Amino acid sequence: MTTPTTGARVSEVRVTPILITDPPLLNLQGVHQPLTPRTIIEVHTASGHVGLGETYGDTEYLDAIRKVAPHLDGVEVARPTALKALIDQILGEETREAATADVPASGLRGKRDLAKLKASVFAAFEVAFLDAWGKVLGVPVHALLGGKVRDRVDYSAYLFYKWAAHPGQDPDAWGAALDPAGVVEQARIFVERYGFTSIKLKGGVFEPDAEIAAVRALREAFPDMPLRLDPNSAWSVETSLYVARELTGVLEYLEDPTAGVEGMARVHAETGMPLATNMCVTGFDEVPEAFARRAVQVVLSDHHYWGGLRATLDLAAMCRCYGVGVSMHSNTHLGISLAAMTQVAAAVPNLHHACDTHRPWQEEDVITRPHTFTGGAVEVGDEPGLGVELDREALADLHRRWADSEVRDRDDVAAMRVVEPEWNAPRLPRW
Amino acid sequence: MTTPTTGARVSEVRVTPILITDPPLLNLQGVHQPLTPRTIIEVHTASGHVGLGETYGDTEYLDAIRKVAPHLDGVEVARPTALKALIDQILGEETREAATADVPASGLRGKRDLAKLKASVFAAFEVAFLDAWGKVLGVPVHALLGGKVRDRVDYSAYLFYKWAAHPGQDPDAWGAALDPAGVVEQARIFVERYGFTSIKLKGGVFEPDAEIAAVRALREAFPDMPLRLDPNSAWSVETSLYVARELTGVLEYLEDPTAGVEGMARVHAETGMPLATNMCVTGFDEVPEAFARRAVQVVLSDHHYWGGLRATLDLAAMCRCYGVGVSMHSNTHLGISLAAMTQVAAAVPNLHHACDTHRPWQEEDVITRPHTFTGGAVEVGDEPGLGVELDREALADLHRRWADSEVRDRDDVAAMRVVEPEWNAPRLPRW
Ligand SMILES: [Mg+2]
Ligand SMILES: [Mg+2]
Repeated sequence: MTTPTTGARVSEVRVTPILITDPPLLNLQGVHQPLTPRTIIEVHTASGHVGLGETYGDTEYLDAIRKVAPHLDGVEVARPTALKALIDQILGEETREAATADVPASGLRGKRDLAKLKASVFAAFEVAFLDAWGKVLGVPVHALLGGKVRDRVDYSAYLFYKWAAHPGQDPDAWGAALDPAGVVEQARIFVERYGFTSIKLKGGVFEPDAEIAAVRALREAFPDMPLRLDPNSAWSVETSLYVARELTGVLEYLEDPTAGVEGMARVHAETGMPLATNMCVTGFDEVPEAFARRAVQVVLSDHHYWGGLRATLDLAAMCRCYGVGVSMHSNTHLGISLAAMTQVAAAVPNLHHACDTHRPWQEEDVITRPHTFTGGAVEVGDEPGLGVELDREALADLHRRWADSEVRDRDDVAAMRVVEPEWNAPRLPRW
Repeated sequence: MTTPTTGARVSEVRVTPILITDPPLLNLQGVHQPLTPRTIIEVHTASGHVGLGETYGDTEYLDAIRKVAPHLDGVEVARPTALKALIDQILGEETREAATADVPASGLRGKRDLAKLKASVFAAFEVAFLDAWGKVLGVPVHALLGGKVRDRVDYSAYLFYKWAAHPGQDPDAWGAALDPAGVVEQARIFVERYGFTSIKLKGGVFEPDAEIAAVRALREAFPDMPLRLDPNSAWSVETSLYVARELTGVLEYLEDPTAGVEGMARVHAETGMPLATNMCVTGFDEVPEAFARRAVQVVLSDHHYWGGLRATLDLAAMCRCYGVGVSMHSNTHLGISLAAMTQVAAAVPNLHHACDTHRPWQEEDVITRPHTFTGGAVEVGDEPGLGVELDREALADLHRRWADSEVRDRDDVAAMRVVEPEWNAPRLPRW
């Protein structure tokens, strides 16, 4: 008997690296480059459907994805386990060196190792498989994940300290944000334009008192909005304790104030401040110790590196069981990733915080109808698959930009060196 | 746009209590009754599909299911979350008393409370929803659970001490098994007939040395087969330590030797014997402490009370993360439950032990093509849904038996009193 399960096999995979523009957003490491890479995946099935995926564009990821892609011919899109086995086989031990070489301990997404690289590659294809399979069946991805529990997914305004312009370029429409007034002004634009009802500030850029002042200014300007601050582990435990105490009752949660389970646990134990993370706990093997020591109160899930949409549900189930909150982390991304984030977020019952997204910072997209935020939320539709369609012209343009450029990796440190030649990734704790 | 998601709505629910014959299998509580109740659920969709579910037939469960059934009209079978919300609402606080009244602490499936009752009711309908939805889409249930990782699910021979006959009845085809020789003989029948490659003995019936002797006799007769012993928490910690030491290197795992996290943890710590459980950890709220204290090395999942097939995947994900093994518990059941167990077992990557099943003990079924065990395994097909079809005549017969009988609950203690009028559920520890 031919079922849609066996009918939906991969007939072709297209992997397209692109470069997208990115504003000069500041963080602990440096500043976002003017152009940043992403990888777009198309999984075509014998039945004529196309599933889409989007992930990091850095060389390490692109190479791994390109290595896997040619082996997917004939794989059932309904059997992600076959995909997992294939990836394990193809990205064998020999990839380990590449996967762990030259990785600064101060990276913004925690540890990096071969398992995490594999999880990311799997995730990129899993999303495309689910999209394709949803289209084959005529059902939305969220239905394949157990069904949506909400019709709208809330996102937060993701504020950044930023320059008015990249070096040598004209100022962008956002303008500079380098002090409390600039941050509040940026927040106003976000709230007015998108209706966000939660606000996150990326910290770790200025000394702690300056960032405390920015959070206080946000509190004054938006008296009722949940606020968050994320210094990417820039601080010592002592500094974290100080900031946590200063901002108790002001922050909804403090994100990754300091590096490591031990320090995080101490900061929470001594201040009661809820701590969120996308650095201290970034894979399943890091969960038990962190939960046991109460180092984190909110895990920021991210299907791009936790291993896909179903793995995100696994993580959420674990958080539910252990009484730990769930929210969502974001890196620079376009609409395919936003669609995937929204589909899985819709299916997580214990998602009690607005998700992070960089999407408003990106002016470009590779889908025909880019998402809109209304009331700070993205609607969860019932269109088949992810509910988005590839804009092939836009994809071709952005790929041409990639082909014509030498930018292959995101490197916030290098981007900062353009302005400050002596700049290096700061040693932690910075403050 | 009408998608299969919105097309597949419940149009009718049929709840049919039945009584099935059951051999005189002995356990700590007493003996299985000649007739035992099950509940069969049919969920009909507006699209003309029928999803099947099977669960406990005891009054408490049947009442709860009957209370929920009339409210399911129009619910999408693709949205189990809507089902969950409904059940929470309908089986509100007022059910709590009934759910916890008169429950012996020595029950065979651990704690009982309202949350667990709700989880069981949800599970029964969730299976029927998944079956119906799979049929609507033309895909097997395992595909809706992330895809099968195996084409056969191994089950274990589930041996019981037993009488030759129920009081006043003719001996059954199995004969008595009341000593090591009888147990070995029973195992031989199981292995010859079904090809099982793992063996479990239900203990807690005779004094520990007698059961140790039975396990040793099994080891001698089947030198290479994984063996398990399950006394249903009949023993003190001291007795458990003694048995664990006697059977180290003989048992694959010892199942629930003693009651409670503390005792289980001590037995494992002091002997190194892997401990399995379907009593110490039977719900998500019991997981963190048991895992933290290393009280259990193998969780015996059971979708009937863990809250369904997707909850079973959640449990398995948690076990994977914490390095705890997964196997599967069984109560007396028929083919719909076996189909559901097989579908979810097929989708659990970290299922490294053969699953328990009582199925060979049941001579009746409510499906048209009862499962067969070959090489001790059930094949995982790709037919839509659960891949089984209701035998309406058989169902009507077994329901008629229920209607004509006064048996409404499984009561192993009462069944034992027929022979031993002074019998009571033993106080733990019995030995
Ligand atoms: Mg962060
Ligand atoms: Mg047991």
